[in-house]
Amino acid sequence: MKFVTARLHDDEFIGMIQGEKVIHINKIAKERFQTDIPTNMISFIEHFHYFEHIIKEIIEEKGHDAFSYSIEETELLAPIPRPSKNVFCVGKNYRDHAIEMGSEQDIPTNLMMFSKAPTAVVGPDAPILRHEDVTDELDYEGELAVIIGKKGKAISKADALHHVFGYTILNDITARDLQSKHKQFLIGKSLDTSCPMGPFIVHKSEIENAANLHIETRVNGEIRQDGNTEQFIFPIEEIIETLSKGTTLEPGDIIATGTPAGVGKGFNPPIFLSSGDIIEITVEGIGTLRNKVQ
Amino acid sequence: MKFVTARLHDDEFIGMIQGEKVIHINKIAKERFQTDIPTNMISFIEHFHYFEHIIKEIIEEKGHDAFSYSIEETELLAPIPRPSKNVFCVGKNYRDHAIEMGSEQDIPTNLMMFSKAPTAVVGPDAPILRHEDVTDELDYEGELAVIIGKKGKAISKADALHHVFGYTILNDITARDLQSKHKQFLIGKSLDTSCPMGPFIVHKSEIENAANLHIETRVNGEIRQDGNTEQFIFPIEEIIETLSKGTTLEPGDIIATGTPAGVGKGFNPPIFLSSGDIIEITVEGIGTLRNKVQ
Repeated sequence: MKFVTARLHDDEFIGMIQGEKVIHINKIAKERFQTDIPTNMISFIEHFHYFEHIIKEIIEEKGHDAFSYSIEETELLAPIPRPSKNVFCVGKNYRDHAIEMGSEQDIPTNLMMFSKAPTAVVGPDAPILRHEDVTDELDYEGELAVIIGKKGKAISKADALHHVFGYTILNDITARDLQSKHKQFLIGKSLDTSCPMGPFIVHKSEIENAANLHIETRVNGEIRQDGNTEQFIFPIEEIIETLSKGTTLEPGDIIATGTPAGVGKGFNPPIFLSSGDIIEITVEGIGTLRNKVQ
Repeated sequence: MKFVTARLHDDEFIGMIQGEKVIHINKIAKERFQTDIPTNMISFIEHFHYFEHIIKEIIEEKGHDAFSYSIEETELLAPIPRPSKNVFCVGKNYRDHAIEMGSEQDIPTNLMMFSKAPTAVVGPDAPILRHEDVTDELDYEGELAVIIGKKGKAISKADALHHVFGYTILNDITARDLQSKHKQFLIGKSLDTSCPMGPFIVHKSEIENAANLHIETRVNGEIRQDGNTEQFIFPIEEIIETLSKGTTLEPGDIIATGTPAGVGKGFNPPIFLSSGDIIEITVEGIGTLRNKVQ
């Protein structure tokens, strides 16, 4: 099950991807099952267990031509177009990335987390602003993002994946100069359009092992990042356990799990983003998130 | 004009403080002016200019006994019970606090900002959880908080105060051990109940100069912090200008402006919070925010 937030004319709805089609979950549920399913992804995730059986019947039934559109004719938004809080982000979760950002001493011994303002979120194919008045060092970070499905606090590692709804791809666009100038990362990580996300949320039932997914970032077709989530310093279960110790997690919360080696700042000399650059991030089992710098 | 979010039985509403009374703005507007005013504070702030004249007539009219309650009989929530994103916080905005947290070298030359998750927000008199399983070093930070009224990006210093709706008091409760363990401050600053806020939002028209307000924090009656916002390293106008350079600010956004010297960690030896401690923060012209550690 791959879910999207899609727009067609003025209708914003939850879509499900079937092959090259987006099927309109809300309309099918309404007309065939007399059921109102939320059109807002956070609410959809929160109440998913109430109508999961309907989703499964829709998948088995087929023949939804009247409610299906080609992906091209709809606009895919970020699967969660407006998160209800900042995006949680793990800093330096891949050994080689920690080293390229400094030295071996930058490999963290404890989980490091910062956040990105929800105003930064944009969808697949949305332009990334170059922000040339604000930064000379705009950089990409391809990441797997975890979507929380069930509210919880003090979640144990053993229980952590029960709180996950699914996974998506996130580009943690960063202004490197602001990141170091302001010490705490918030400002350098929260520029408008600096959080492309999507295109889909893949339900966890389709991801056999999120701790072993290939992740690759290409800029203008050139492979820059080539990693695997098995390289995580802090696995997803540990991130959820540590973060939730004193902080309640809620449905729709987004946790970006960190980026592998190969960011622009890691090159010698660094290669920062320019207008026209096309960034594509592919995560195994999820898809490809593509955005162009304006 | 002092605004609150109040609850009486199951009715959550926008109240205005008049003397010792809370008057029910929504009911008066509905019954006397046939106008629906939002009951949600973020929406109230966003649309304030549409009904500001009604608020002013309500103030002049008097005789609202049928719509007024004693402060004791209502429950005051945080004025913004659920912010729509993390609370923006300035780190080390008072010289002496920067020094007590380390040394002169900790006085920042550039604005430092981090955030607190919106799940941490609680109202006046709400209990602060001790979180003894998570931290041994729970600490207080009394702060003036700015509430944004008007959406904007790349806001100049000259224009910054036009984007402010008003001011409130915020206690930036911090787990010092987690703050240093996790390097980036998010985890140590986002424990549930670690963001008491209120009791009122005072409209900016009542604050002649937010850059000259006495701020005092008492723990169990003992004065611990005694500062003035004139000591800010980064004035409010500069905070708004720097933060909004690349990041859109929205109505209802909260910016905590940093804390003066005198936090528990600053004592030798440090004095951290214990169950039963009562923290009171008084900001001149605004009021007193009082919370007890559970």
